[in-house]
Amino acid sequence: MKAVVYHGPGKKAWETVPDPAIEKDTDVIVRVTTTTICGTDLHILKGDVPETAAGTILGHEAVGVVEEVGAGVRNFRKGDRVIIPAITACGQCEYCKRGMYSHCLNGGWILGHTVNGLQAQFARVPFADTSLYKVPEGLRDEDVLFLTDILPTAYECGVLNGRVGPGDTVVVVGAGPVGLAAVMLSRLYSPAAVIAVDLDARRLERARRLGADVTVQSDREDPVEVVRKYTGGRGADVAIEAVGIPATFELCTELVGPGGRIANIGVHGKPVTLHLEKLWAHNVTITTRLVDTETISQLMKLIASKRIDPTPLASHTFRMDEFMKAYEVFGQAAANDAVKVVVKQ
Amino acid sequence: MKAVVYHGPGKKAWETVPDPAIEKDTDVIVRVTTTTICGTDLHILKGDVPETAAGTILGHEAVGVVEEVGAGVRNFRKGDRVIIPAITACGQCEYCKRGMYSHCLNGGWILGHTVNGLQAQFARVPFADTSLYKVPEGLRDEDVLFLTDILPTAYECGVLNGRVGPGDTVVVVGAGPVGLAAVMLSRLYSPAAVIAVDLDARRLERARRLGADVTVQSDREDPVEVVRKYTGGRGADVAIEAVGIPATFELCTELVGPGGRIANIGVHGKPVTLHLEKLWAHNVTITTRLVDTETISQLMKLIASKRIDPTPLASHTFRMDEFMKAYEVFGQAAANDAVKVVVKQ
Repeated sequence: MKAVVYHGPGKKAWETVPDPAIEKDTDVIVRVTTTTICGTDLHILKGDVPETAAGTILGHEAVGVVEEVGAGVRNFRKGDRVIIPAITACGQCEYCKRGMYSHCLNGGWILGHTVNGLQAQFARVPFADTSLYKVPEGLRDEDVLFLTDILPTAYECGVLNGRVGPGDTVVVVGAGPVGLAAVMLSRLYSPAAVIAVDLDARRLERARRLGADVTVQSDREDPVEVVRKYTGGRGADVAIEAVGIPATFELCTELVGPGGRIANIGVHGKPVTLHLEKLWAHNVTITTRLVDTETISQLMKLIASKRIDPTPLASHTFRMDEFMKAYEVFGQAAANDAVKVVVKQ
Repeated sequence: MKAVVYHGPGKKAWETVPDPAIEKDTDVIVRVTTTTICGTDLHILKGDVPETAAGTILGHEAVGVVEEVGAGVRNFRKGDRVIIPAITACGQCEYCKRGMYSHCLNGGWILGHTVNGLQAQFARVPFADTSLYKVPEGLRDEDVLFLTDILPTAYECGVLNGRVGPGDTVVVVGAGPVGLAAVMLSRLYSPAAVIAVDLDARRLERARRLGADVTVQSDREDPVEVVRKYTGGRGADVAIEAVGIPATFELCTELVGPGGRIANIGVHGKPVTLHLEKLWAHNVTITTRLVDTETISQLMKLIASKRIDPTPLASHTFRMDEFMKAYEVFGQAAANDAVKVVVKQ
């Protein structure tokens, strides 16, 4: 089969590799029908994720069809259409039993990280019974693709951790794919206003279409001023960090008012300065989390009932044999007005 | 009357000043019968709190007897024994209505900060009806004195913000007055273990008497190692920061495991480094808060029913005319084995 193989920092190729095979009786083999690229894949390619060995197939978000099941798999059979989430979970360890699948002692985020991933024609998925979800009839791959990572990430790490509630003022810093998803999903809790902050006018236009009431292009206007004006000087109830650099995290701590919540989603590579000399008395809550994907069923019902439509998060579609082109477009997202790219077999 | 007057950085005196008088009809005048010194008073004396003007009477924790009431005061009369909390609250602003009295737009922490305080023979207390508590019969000043600040601080900012729960492993970093109170009050929620960390062996001995199961003298043992050993490598559920310096805050972020809560109580004067490059995926919650004193009634019931006894938090007792001596002992707390000092008229 063919797959996107990581060959060490800066190097990848769409090349022929051996077909995957069942290794444990809880595995399945899936024929990948639709997949995508994540910002985290770009981090791996930069060399920021040293535990990913050269030779690993990249990718942790895909929809496909079960081709073969291990002897111990009970809930899936050949031909089932399935979502393969970024997080695979053994279902048996202490963390799985607490619903903290991202910390699963046997799985967690392993696909395209420490084991071969999903940017491939076929993939081995471990812990199938406790990780896969069937695609409901009537939903296309594109409808459910983002349930594999960015939707539950925005929802669990942003909206739920930030405790977005009716009447709240919510600021989403960063209007990339996950930030845009956070804008859309914040609306589920009837906030008074969702304010999106980014440098890119086209991304902010997308944020408006997905439900932002106010947008702030942060090289032209000071987000702190705008939020103060919008909240009678009090500050926001929730600030969702969806970039992953020190400046945007520190901005979030300035945006929230007393009682505010700062929900970090961004993948950070550097420490940040936390101004506890101001914040110690400010009554704020800061949360971090890697997505557990525990809300996939909930979000799937919202898609099936057309309460949310994540398809505008896809900006480009490619065939698998154009995978290098897809990386090029996604890697220069701002220049190409790219959000998520969809890659189909 | 006589009072402790702040005369700018490093300077204070027990001196004669004009008696306080009713200024607004919601004020009362209280004859202070018992008061104490807070670490925050020492911060003011160092010059760390520039908004406190020279000439201000210090102190924000006292018990006393109402001497005179303003025309608008309905719930108190001359002769009532009352607790004067560190936080006075107008009861009418947006934050008061949300129970966030520390952010009261008209009051908050003002006593001994921006208006004259309680280390005095008499004191004017604003917003009496919405700030004072009557002392139940049968309780002495010493029984309820610490309800004015350190008990609700430890409880609200530490135990409640840290969501201490049955079976949790709780680490309290810092065994000063507030840390010791956090040890005692954590036990209300039946944790599996309370681990106290400090440099001072005598304070750790007090922590054991107040309910710590394990103590770590942090210049002799590594608290991270001890907590790992105690939690099967997982880390603590709750770390309560009760010191207020960067090193102890950063220690707390190393002590908690996935799903852990870091509840900051410490008054910080400097920014800290937050290692988001490790913590972004660690599923942690960090909280800050200035005490709202909203739990005074609850804690008072625990004292009245003898479920908790805060009196061991007092190490020394002085008369008011010994106030300078009391400051000396409290200012060199470690050398004097001092925790809280009680100062009586």
